[in-house]
Amino acid sequence: MTTVEAAAAVARSPLVILPAGAYEQHGPGMPLATDTLRAEAVAERVAAELGGRAVIGPSLPVGVSPHHLGFAGTVTLTTGTLAAVVRDYVGSLHRHGWRKFLVITGHGGNNATLTTVAQDLLADRPDVEFAWTPVTVLASEVVAEMGVSEVHGHSGEAETAQMLHLAPQLVHRERLVAGTTAHDQLDPLSKVARRGGHPTLTLPYDRLSPNGVLGDPRTATPEDGAAIVAAVVTRITAFAKEWLDS
Amino acid sequence: MTTVEAAAAVARSPLVILPAGAYEQHGPGMPLATDTLRAEAVAERVAAELGGRAVIGPSLPVGVSPHHLGFAGTVTLTTGTLAAVVRDYVGSLHRHGWRKFLVITGHGGNNATLTTVAQDLLADRPDVEFAWTPVTVLASEVVAEMGVSEVHGHSGEAETAQMLHLAPQLVHRERLVAGTTAHDQLDPLSKVARRGGHPTLTLPYDRLSPNGVLGDPRTATPEDGAAIVAAVVTRITAFAKEWLDS
Amino acid sequence: MTTVEAAAAVARSPLVILPAGAYEQHGPGMPLATDTLRAEAVAERVAAELGGRAVIGPSLPVGVSPHHLGFAGTVTLTTGTLAAVVRDYVGSLHRHGWRKFLVITGHGGNNATLTTVAQDLLADRPDVEFAWTPVTVLASEVVAEMGVSEVHGHSGEAETAQMLHLAPQLVHRERLVAGTTAHDQLDPLSKVARRGGHPTLTLPYDRLSPNGVLGDPRTATPEDGAAIVAAVVTRITAFAKEWLDS
Amino acid sequence: MTTVEAAAAVARSPLVILPAGAYEQHGPGMPLATDTLRAEAVAERVAAELGGRAVIGPSLPVGVSPHHLGFAGTVTLTTGTLAAVVRDYVGSLHRHGWRKFLVITGHGGNNATLTTVAQDLLADRPDVEFAWTPVTVLASEVVAEMGVSEVHGHSGEAETAQMLHLAPQLVHRERLVAGTTAHDQLDPLSKVARRGGHPTLTLPYDRLSPNGVLGDPRTATPEDGAAIVAAVVTRITAFAKEWLDS
Amino acid sequence: MTTVEAAAAVARSPLVILPAGAYEQHGPGMPLATDTLRAEAVAERVAAELGGRAVIGPSLPVGVSPHHLGFAGTVTLTTGTLAAVVRDYVGSLHRHGWRKFLVITGHGGNNATLTTVAQDLLADRPDVEFAWTPVTVLASEVVAEMGVSEVHGHSGEAETAQMLHLAPQLVHRERLVAGTTAHDQLDPLSKVARRGGHPTLTLPYDRLSPNGVLGDPRTATPEDGAAIVAAVVTRITAFAKEWLDS
Amino acid sequence: MTTVEAAAAVARSPLVILPAGAYEQHGPGMPLATDTLRAEAVAERVAAELGGRAVIGPSLPVGVSPHHLGFAGTVTLTTGTLAAVVRDYVGSLHRHGWRKFLVITGHGGNNATLTTVAQDLLADRPDVEFAWTPVTVLASEVVAEMGVSEVHGHSGEAETAQMLHLAPQLVHRERLVAGTTAHDQLDPLSKVARRGGHPTLTLPYDRLSPNGVLGDPRTATPEDGAAIVAAVVTRITAFAKEWLDS
Repeated sequence: MTTVEAAAAVARSPLVILPAGAYEQHGPGMPLATDTLRAEAVAERVAAELGGRAVIGPSLPVGVSPHHLGFAGTVTLTTGTLAAVVRDYVGSLHRHGWRKFLVITGHGGNNATLTTVAQDLLADRPDVEFAWTPVTVLASEVVAEMGVSEVHGHSGEAETAQMLHLAPQLVHRERLVAGTTAHDQLDPLSKVARRGGHPTLTLPYDRLSPNGVLGDPRTATPEDGAAIVAAVVTRITAFAKEWLDS
Repeated sequence: MTTVEAAAAVARSPLVILPAGAYEQHGPGMPLATDTLRAEAVAERVAAELGGRAVIGPSLPVGVSPHHLGFAGTVTLTTGTLAAVVRDYVGSLHRHGWRKFLVITGHGGNNATLTTVAQDLLADRPDVEFAWTPVTVLASEVVAEMGVSEVHGHSGEAETAQMLHLAPQLVHRERLVAGTTAHDQLDPLSKVARRGGHPTLTLPYDRLSPNGVLGDPRTATPEDGAAIVAAVVTRITAFAKEWLDS
Repeated sequence: MTTVEAAAAVARSPLVILPAGAYEQHGPGMPLATDTLRAEAVAERVAAELGGRAVIGPSLPVGVSPHHLGFAGTVTLTTGTLAAVVRDYVGSLHRHGWRKFLVITGHGGNNATLTTVAQDLLADRPDVEFAWTPVTVLASEVVAEMGVSEVHGHSGEAETAQMLHLAPQLVHRERLVAGTTAHDQLDPLSKVARRGGHPTLTLPYDRLSPNGVLGDPRTATPEDGAAIVAAVVTRITAFAKEWLDS
Repeated sequence: MTTVEAAAAVARSPLVILPAGAYEQHGPGMPLATDTLRAEAVAERVAAELGGRAVIGPSLPVGVSPHHLGFAGTVTLTTGTLAAVVRDYVGSLHRHGWRKFLVITGHGGNNATLTTVAQDLLADRPDVEFAWTPVTVLASEVVAEMGVSEVHGHSGEAETAQMLHLAPQLVHRERLVAGTTAHDQLDPLSKVARRGGHPTLTLPYDRLSPNGVLGDPRTATPEDGAAIVAAVVTRITAFAKEWLDS
Repeated sequence: MTTVEAAAAVARSPLVILPAGAYEQHGPGMPLATDTLRAEAVAERVAAELGGRAVIGPSLPVGVSPHHLGFAGTVTLTTGTLAAVVRDYVGSLHRHGWRKFLVITGHGGNNATLTTVAQDLLADRPDVEFAWTPVTVLASEVVAEMGVSEVHGHSGEAETAQMLHLAPQLVHRERLVAGTTAHDQLDPLSKVARRGGHPTLTLPYDRLSPNGVLGDPRTATPEDGAAIVAAVVTRITAFAKEWLDS
Repeated sequence: MTTVEAAAAVARSPLVILPAGAYEQHGPGMPLATDTLRAEAVAERVAAELGGRAVIGPSLPVGVSPHHLGFAGTVTLTTGTLAAVVRDYVGSLHRHGWRKFLVITGHGGNNATLTTVAQDLLADRPDVEFAWTPVTVLASEVVAEMGVSEVHGHSGEAETAQMLHLAPQLVHRERLVAGTTAHDQLDPLSKVARRGGHPTLTLPYDRLSPNGVLGDPRTATPEDGAAIVAAVVTRITAFAKEWLDS
């Protein structure tokens, strides 16, 4: 996209989609950029579904990942830095005339910061409508049908399936190994953190899993990944259409 | 509590509970401090259940409430200010020797900021264990049984019930009136924001409801409030015991 | 107070009083919240004297207390955090229409930060009138008549007297003991810090007094406390009336 | 001073004196840098009196002067900026080995910020001893004997006298004119602000005085200025000696 | 790269290369991400030349571009935000063991911020060696031989040539048009800003050029681009080798 | 200058010159304030040349000098603090009506921060024109003719010459000694840093030179200093005139 397309898009495409990810360990078999790749792929498909009513802005390739710092290669922003970056993106695009923003984050560690940005914008830029969404949880029904491990999540069945669908060339299949898959494998404090629901206790992932994986990525299939992505895209698209029509 | 009790508590009571609330409109019938009062009441009961293994620290009487600024009296902190306050509390108590912190927030607008604090603490103070919890959602089963409105939430049946149980003298019963109770009463953009689940769009509450209320507080009873509070206390206590024993 | 009263108060009660305190050691006999309690009590009495021309906003229950961190239980904000909180309170209430703010601080450690807020507001919000006041020093004549110790101050005769008047149930009378009462008990550096007047050297209180007390709280009486509070309330009320009439 | 003298001074001169001033209107007859000049002059004399036990560090030529922004030429720092500058000075000199710091401020607008720095340093750099002092108020007895105006202060008799003594070539004597000299000349709100003592209300100086002057600088004499400076130097020197000996 | 490769790289590849770019107008013919693409391409080639002694970390896809905000699509970070991001990257990778960092920036607007990061790191992380480099100016001899316009720079001959070499599919050749090419086309203030050398006056680019282009991109050839990139890679590689061997 | 002259200057003297320096080691023979003195001297001469079209504002006596912290006496601001100070200066003078600012920095360590201020002002205060300039490099032709050492720079021939011309009484001629003068005297990492041109690696000066000097100040003459200063003043004056006329 050049500035020419951008100028045209201000009028024609009132929604800006910003893909947000992470640069963090995804176990021995998946790339550090896994979450960013998934977010970008979903963003592109949603934009395509919206048929010109949305444009994709610059990515946020690094997110909030302090819980993964125990694993080499992980890069994290503080929550304050990520919030500043998102605000700067929004502030810049606001100057050009955009008012609707949707951040699609492939990384759950960004969720809270995105909410704080939304809250502060209410007071600072009342004419902005700022929304955000995670990816995988939008397809929770699909994931439930996949038959995932008791403990399941980061770099597990669902994320791996998406990568096998979206970027199979970046997955080291031969290295995929199970991480923590059962509640009993957790130490007592980790069990507290993985009780589910609230209260919420945040622990570093090297405590939850020796290899950083929750679940068993070996059972993931590209077909499952395609189903997850399709469900996610459908849901976000429906949301965006309703929003654009409101 | 004096410094004498505090000194004794460092050894005996390894958990500090911090009640967090808000200073924001709660419709025509409930006080601005509703969320703080509920959080403090729950904190006291949980501490009592824990039998000396927890102490209650200073409250956070003002939270993140930009969405209520359209209603007189609402005071909000930015998310950055609230995060700084919580960090300062934790940092001070850390000097005295505490390592476990549980924030009980009566106000959902604080959730995201509390998560960002938890995340940043992972990198900055790895010896701290920081947890937080909302209140009402822990009793979602009880609330479901109450038969609440289609649109239900802020200052609605569940919050009002808690106040009728905890601080009936502060509730102006004669002023309790229904707010937005049905999806059809919402304007199109508000419908998008109240779809449920993700994506998440944050809107100011004067858009969602003319009087700031979601639901019909007139149907609330003190008995329901007692049941909600009991469920919340039970759940947090169970969590805290497992944590303290881990 | 609900949002209904707040909406009415914007027009009728142009002055907002904000009570500020501390959460810090007050010797073995008085609670950590001593300063906040005193500030709130004075605020309520001043507001009553002003007969509807002032409202009381949310408290600032934790202040700037790094000098007390040597004693368990003390929680402090940095000066920057406290300033941010006060600015957020003022900014929120400014949206609703208030322009006159009076912070009553029961804790002298907040004085400087309140002044910095007043200064920065001059440039940032020229339509705001921001005043603040300490408590005990307004009654210096009463205190002088009480016959206090040579070294006298924190948790000493005057503060204890106020608590015996305002919240006797929170004072552990049997634990009240003298702290540092004479200049000769101070080490040389502490003598420098307690010379009186300027230059000003700030030292931690565990250096000034082994038990955190300056003075002898055992001589305090509720009658002295009542006299102090009355003098303080009279002086603040007179100030506020002149201000509101100007 | 070169780095050679600085290296020697770390051992021989354990006290660093930092002169702080302002760059703000001082009426039609005195320079914008009046407060900095006075602070530097006092610093030099105190250092001389201390006979090698103190060194003078870099000046702080601009201070906190938002109340003078109504008059051309005034430059102000926010309180946060000034605090950052002072902390950076202290942090740098701390690396070289200094632990005792005394800021002499010729401008009262800096007082609060200096106190906040002292407070934050207690927690952040417990091995630092940080003191600060104003100038003119140390000579209040001398000033009282001068017979000053009822309203008296900024650019008035005492400040002008000091300048006539320290830098007569920078004073435009022919332009010296009286500013506000009597309480009755003040408008009602200004009277509130000039009541004396607490509560404290901060107002811009263009409201207090049409020409920015409080008092009548025409009655100032260099002899009075010499007496003020001598009293100030004596007092600070005595303080510093006691400190260095403690 | 997965965390497995990252863990191996900490020992084997002591240098981390971080590509930095911009998301800003590049005239009607080149994409907003031009600078990031060029930086990433150079980074990959330098890493290849270094044969395993360097790894490439996450990109900085948005930089400091306030001077391009007059053109649609430009997104800028404030200098403080970019500095925070770079510091967070360095801080994260420092935890894993890396000490040498080289930022390759395709966007000159990032240069100053990168220098400020380098300066602050000297004091905060003395064990870090932080270097940065621009791209095109390293090939100034090649550019000089190309015969560029009198006014030449942003989106001009040299940048376009690089893109024709590196990513020709992203260049809209048919849209390439000359921007400001001669000093006489500039208005007087712009002439001051483009005098060359110091003093330095920064102006927005919509003042310097109606279409945001400085120079005539139509004369650019992929061959020139290849020569520029080769010269840049050679120079950075030589620097990095000398550094790694030192 | 008093506020009277300042008020007149807003209309008559549209350009404000701000001298910026440093407080850092300048070898055994030159004062810590060398850079500030040179900047102020140049500022005065430029202002004189401009005949009333410029005024000189307050100095920035301390700059960004972390690379000199290894030598006693050096005081540094972080880049963020210096930027805040400059912005506060500009913001204050902007209130009075000035729009053109020129910072003359005698210290190269300030260059990057000044550029970041210029960039952020483009977005925040689009009506401001902010320029900055170094000193010595403007006279590079004169310096080249002086016949300086192979390694030459800080406190070397050119800086010393300027001081011998501008403030000979502050130069300890008998202490002037050569520092690092030849590339071969550098250790391998320092050679990388002193390669010249980009990439840029910033190292502390105690690594580059045992006594903090680059070059041989003994060969400096006041005549060379006069020539340097004259060339610098000529160049800045020409720039300013063109600017003021534009």
